[in-house]
Amino acid sequence: MNKPVDTALRKPALDPRTVSPRTDSGYPEPFRSRVLPREKRALGDALGITKFGVNLTTLAPGAESSMRHWHTHEEELVYVLEGEVMLRTDAGEQRLVAGTCAGFPLGTRDGHQLINRSSRPAVYLEIGSRDDADAAFYPDIDLQFNHPDAPGVYSHLDGTPY
Amino acid sequence: MNKPVDTALRKPALDPRTVSPRTDSGYPEPFRSRVLPREKRALGDALGITKFGVNLTTLAPGAESSMRHWHTHEEELVYVLEGEVMLRTDAGEQRLVAGTCAGFPLGTRDGHQLINRSSRPAVYLEIGSRDDADAAFYPDIDLQFNHPDAPGVYSHLDGTPY
Repeated sequence: MNKPVDTALRKPALDPRTVSPRTDSGYPEPFRSRVLPREKRALGDALGITKFGVNLTTLAPGAESSMRHWHTHEEELVYVLEGEVMLRTDAGEQRLVAGTCAGFPLGTRDGHQLINRSSRPAVYLEIGSRDDADAAFYPDIDLQFNHPDAPGVYSHLDGTPY
Repeated sequence: MNKPVDTALRKPALDPRTVSPRTDSGYPEPFRSRVLPREKRALGDALGITKFGVNLTTLAPGAESSMRHWHTHEEELVYVLEGEVMLRTDAGEQRLVAGTCAGFPLGTRDGHQLINRSSRPAVYLEIGSRDDADAAFYPDIDLQFNHPDAPGVYSHLDGTPY
């Protein structure tokens, strides 16, 4: 990322560094603090893509990409561009270095998350399909997304919103 | 790509270099020869992803990613990893270097293609949504995909299959 920003590119081309990053998180505490600092640049949205999302994400040392989770209707694929992250699933942890990837088909019931256990920022692309019917389950914590009693928001497992 | 291949990675993780590349093309001649040599590693398929495709593609000097085209129902996004390609659209050509991207919303009617005009291989990720209703139009040549008279195959503009 040490090349000059190419502001001359015009759509349908884009230099990701011209996209303002999202630096917040939709998680309630105490989970929000675990994923920050984190920068997400929504490249797909910036390019007018609607069928899937593509984020260029920078994860600070010590930060987690998300809480460990799986989706009922959406699928995800991550491709590591710089640095390294640990991929945590039911089977334990695997190191993903730049040039490796991981994919999460819908409904696998094996929660996943990335953790930056290194001393430098990790950069990866995260690609995700979109489905309004999706719900996300977090096997380690009292958190659920799109509970029938709390649609569209993060709730406790009993459906009580945070 | 000079690091050792990590064959120890287990799904849901994957080292792309363990995926056998597709080196052919579905195009009829004289178009097939214009896109080869080209290697496509279907990372999404290898990881069991069904809602979208993610290919890691290596395009040789002189080769074209595809004939210039646009889709009626599918969307695409490319992210350049190594080397550089020229993106050609109605507006002309733009240089995409490593770390830049381009996206093609459905139905834009502005055909796109990548051309490797450099002297070394270009490597990029190409992400695409999937829709059986899709048709592709090629503004520069006598080629169409999924013509009503020739569903699922490449045909001449009058529907005659190649």
